Amino acid sequence: MILGLMQTSPLLVSGILRYAASAHGGREIVSRLIDEPIWRYNYEGLARRAAQAAHALARLGVKPGDRVTSLAWNTHRHLELFYAAPGLGAVLHTANPRLSDEQIVFTINHAASRVLLFDRNFADLVARLAPRLTSIETFVMLSDAERTHPAGVEAASYEALIAGEAGTFDWPTMDENAGAFLCYTSGTTGDPKGVLYSHRAVVLHAMAGGLASAFGLTAFDVVMPCSSLYHATAWGLPFTAPICGAKLVLPADKMDGASLHRLIQDEGVTFTGGVPTIWTMYLAYLEQTGERPVALKRVVIGGSAVPRAMAETFKTRYGVDVLQIWGMTETCPLGVIATPTPALAALGEDAMNEAIWTRQGRLQFGIELRVEAEDGSEAPRDGETSGALKVRGPWVVRRYYRKDEDAADVDGWFDTGDIATLDQNGFLRITDRQKDVIKSGGEWISSIDLENIAAGCPGVKIAAVVGVPHPKWEERPLLVIETHEGAAVAKADVLAFLEPRIVKWWTPDDVVFAPVPLTATGKIDKKVLREAWRSHLTG
Amino acid sequence: MILGLMQTSPLLVSGILRYAASAHGGREIVSRLIDEPIWRYNYEGLARRAAQAAHALARLGVKPGDRVTSLAWNTHRHLELFYAAPGLGAVLHTANPRLSDEQIVFTINHAASRVLLFDRNFADLVARLAPRLTSIETFVMLSDAERTHPAGVEAASYEALIAGEAGTFDWPTMDENAGAFLCYTSGTTGDPKGVLYSHRAVVLHAMAGGLASAFGLTAFDVVMPCSSLYHATAWGLPFTAPICGAKLVLPADKMDGASLHRLIQDEGVTFTGGVPTIWTMYLAYLEQTGERPVALKRVVIGGSAVPRAMAETFKTRYGVDVLQIWGMTETCPLGVIATPTPALAALGEDAMNEAIWTRQGRLQFGIELRVEAEDGSEAPRDGETSGALKVRGPWVVRRYYRKDEDAADVDGWFDTGDIATLDQNGFLRITDRQKDVIKSGGEWISSIDLENIAAGCPGVKIAAVVGVPHPKWEERPLLVIETHEGAAVAKADVLAFLEPRIVKWWTPDDVVFAPVPLTATGKIDKKVLREAWRSHLTG
Repeated sequence: MILGLMQTSPLLVSGILRYAASAHGGREIVSRLIDEPIWRYNYEGLARRAAQAAHALARLGVKPGDRVTSLAWNTHRHLELFYAAPGLGAVLHTANPRLSDEQIVFTINHAASRVLLFDRNFADLVARLAPRLTSIETFVMLSDAERTHPAGVEAASYEALIAGEAGTFDWPTMDENAGAFLCYTSGTTGDPKGVLYSHRAVVLHAMAGGLASAFGLTAFDVVMPCSSLYHATAWGLPFTAPICGAKLVLPADKMDGASLHRLIQDEGVTFTGGVPTIWTMYLAYLEQTGERPVALKRVVIGGSAVPRAMAETFKTRYGVDVLQIWGMTETCPLGVIATPTPALAALGEDAMNEAIWTRQGRLQFGIELRVEAEDGSEAPRDGETSGALKVRGPWVVRRYYRKDEDAADVDGWFDTGDIATLDQNGFLRITDRQKDVIKSGGEWISSIDLENIAAGCPGVKIAAVVGVPHPKWEERPLLVIETHEGAAVAKADVLAFLEPRIVKWWTPDDVVFAPVPLTATGKIDKKVLREAWRSHLTG
Repeated sequence: MILGLMQTSPLLVSGILRYAASAHGGREIVSRLIDEPIWRYNYEGLARRAAQAAHALARLGVKPGDRVTSLAWNTHRHLELFYAAPGLGAVLHTANPRLSDEQIVFTINHAASRVLLFDRNFADLVARLAPRLTSIETFVMLSDAERTHPAGVEAASYEALIAGEAGTFDWPTMDENAGAFLCYTSGTTGDPKGVLYSHRAVVLHAMAGGLASAFGLTAFDVVMPCSSLYHATAWGLPFTAPICGAKLVLPADKMDGASLHRLIQDEGVTFTGGVPTIWTMYLAYLEQTGERPVALKRVVIGGSAVPRAMAETFKTRYGVDVLQIWGMTETCPLGVIATPTPALAALGEDAMNEAIWTRQGRLQFGIELRVEAEDGSEAPRDGETSGALKVRGPWVVRRYYRKDEDAADVDGWFDTGDIATLDQNGFLRITDRQKDVIKSGGEWISSIDLENIAAGCPGVKIAAVVGVPHPKWEERPLLVIETHEGAAVAKADVLAFLEPRIVKWWTPDDVVFAPVPLTATGKIDKKVLREAWRSHLTG
């Protein structure tokens, strides 16, 4: 081996910002805010204010390698933190407000963050958590100076903080493997696990997303990420959009159909993405009002399987292509994207749509997929044989944050916990899940955690929780209880028992009393339960 | 700084092949050959035969780090070498057959290549050069066994060589900064200079080319590179196409209008690219025959400035978009690409086309451009102020092969030798050239080398060579001679003097006798000369 003689400039998040400001400086960024008017600027403005924010963070004592936490919606201020913190060499921990108080506290303390920057409507939450946040030295409200209320916690105003700072920052050159973002996943039981994205992973992932055969954004696109910025960096769209020169539209927390439609129409959104729940609401809104999106061309849907009817409605009624994606926090998150191929097109439009609407996506450059049979061999790519889905590649987790063991095996394969098939066209179909988790509106609920808590309720012999189909949230938890002989337990008793012990949105949609089937090895047979109760919430 | 915890899998050329075979295995590759029927296979076949070729090279003793030279056209066998040699850790030196014998010998000896693989119609050339190729141990003709003639040199048949080898190869994992391709540039005076592309540079460059805002290839594209595989890896198309799942069509050396049109029609080519000279011939062919390309959508043109009329004809008469690009061997070669933006579109279609047709391109992600005034400051981006064009980025040369000094400055800026302007939309216009070189049909001719040789002709006082516009080759050399007083020198004398000393295609298109203007510092005033003689070959 001899070394090449090309430049080895590191792939850094700051390079994306520098490019966008230089090549697409005038391209707009539009952001809704919490109780403030819509904000408008452009990539030049983003570069200027990200520099100001970086100076402000540095003034607060944030140094390279330090962690900073955001608890925020999809706004331009949050976007500025996406560039400011990693730009100066710090790590942005994007806390997930959907977690329980305990879990949020755990993640911030686990990250040992020094600064917490939060949106105004998280003020109560922050005031409640503040006494337990052992590492936070500075609280900053992402708000203008006038609107920063005292909130049970001493918080500076973001706008006041950055106001006097210089609009340029000499972004340091550093190792591209430096940590940039810390995203916790609560997908499985136990404490949330941190995935520490490197600059290299973020940049490569953003480039892969910008490939014409992936998201295919051009400078003419207007991109509105409805996936949360705190969820695996909103699928990398805050990086892919500037790389491609696309306009960015940020909807804050207004994910209802009317609010989204307003932005889609007013800003000429051509490309958006989010979990199915959002699009259920959006399609219902269109249906009710008879309105039609004008410029919208593509909706990327992921986080949960896309209902076939949703994809069909978007396409046939509104002429909008649906691109399914599959991925997870551990994959930055892009794994596969369901973009068409000539092999599919050759089957005819109906068959092609069917394939695209019922599969999670196809192999993308950079990510390797392996469906593994129980004996460890690779399953044939016949679209039939299912097995454990494993992934590897330059934007796949190697090890969780502050763990002593790698999450991937020696060959780099990370077990996703999903059961899947691959077909000869390279299309992936998720068929089942190894892990006992429920995905409600794109958020994970641990059925095992719920079971463990419910099992503590007096009179309960076995508590089993399964995810069952739900018209809005895709999947919601159903609690099946087998009581001790002679015990009299009512639904209200169980719910009252759970209420102080779980975050509100984990509350099972129903509690039913029935014998719980067990597998041969004495485990709860979730497959049988899911099948038996699958229509319980949908009728 | 803390390190991220993502996988650090290296970006390797073999990863592109693995992806294409896995995700787009059935997508076709079609290749013309030298005196053989058209060849058809697919990415699965490419992976299989590249593995066979790698085994064969290894059997010939090629080890990681060794150099291997190809002297070949755009064929599937050459493509196989693009993956086989770098895949096993060796470096593929793609020799340029347009250079003089001396230069070809120089590059192969400078590379210290161990194996030379050549197309059949280079057999005479190879026989002539063989005695001076000090490092070549094995000669291989890229041909089937029956057609491998004895050719004044002992050559094995490529097909015979790979026939018995295994169709899989355990491509080694290695440092992504390892050398993969060695491309020599003869742009300036003196010996050709080698640019040693790393795997990382090749992969990043291929991804950048695949961005929707760049070449924007999808799985539906049919890509025919008419830029030579030996010229900066044909603009990376042999890598971008498989990353995007596009079909590849390889025209061998048949670049005439009729041959290209046949492939374009028969194979459904949607995307092609090459130097202006090729498209001059192609448009003339369409004009003469009244034929029209059916599926063709885009032609990327680079290597020399695109005549405005060419772009306009493609667009208005045939509905084909022309994308200008600018780059050089030292930039892998993609620098800028003239893709439209909303800012340009807002000016109206005519103004947008005008901008796109008269500028070399706009800033692309990954490459930084700097137009530098004489005092070292950055020139304003006003589209007017010109200066030295400098570039840097992860696919820009750091140092030429076997040189002791970096070609880029300490900040990474590489001086391209071009004079350019940048405008507020990030569009680049090359306005002049610092270096005394002429670009004929995409190939460099050193005017200084020509002058030095011509100055040796008896009776010549000053020999000046300038490039002047030419209807087919864009630019051809004109030799202006000022004779010693009283000396009688005729055009025929000069040409006879040059003939044994230069490669044939360097021969000046005309020799004129006139006083040679000098600058204040006594140098030949090329600007004045170019202006005075600019219509000599076209008028």
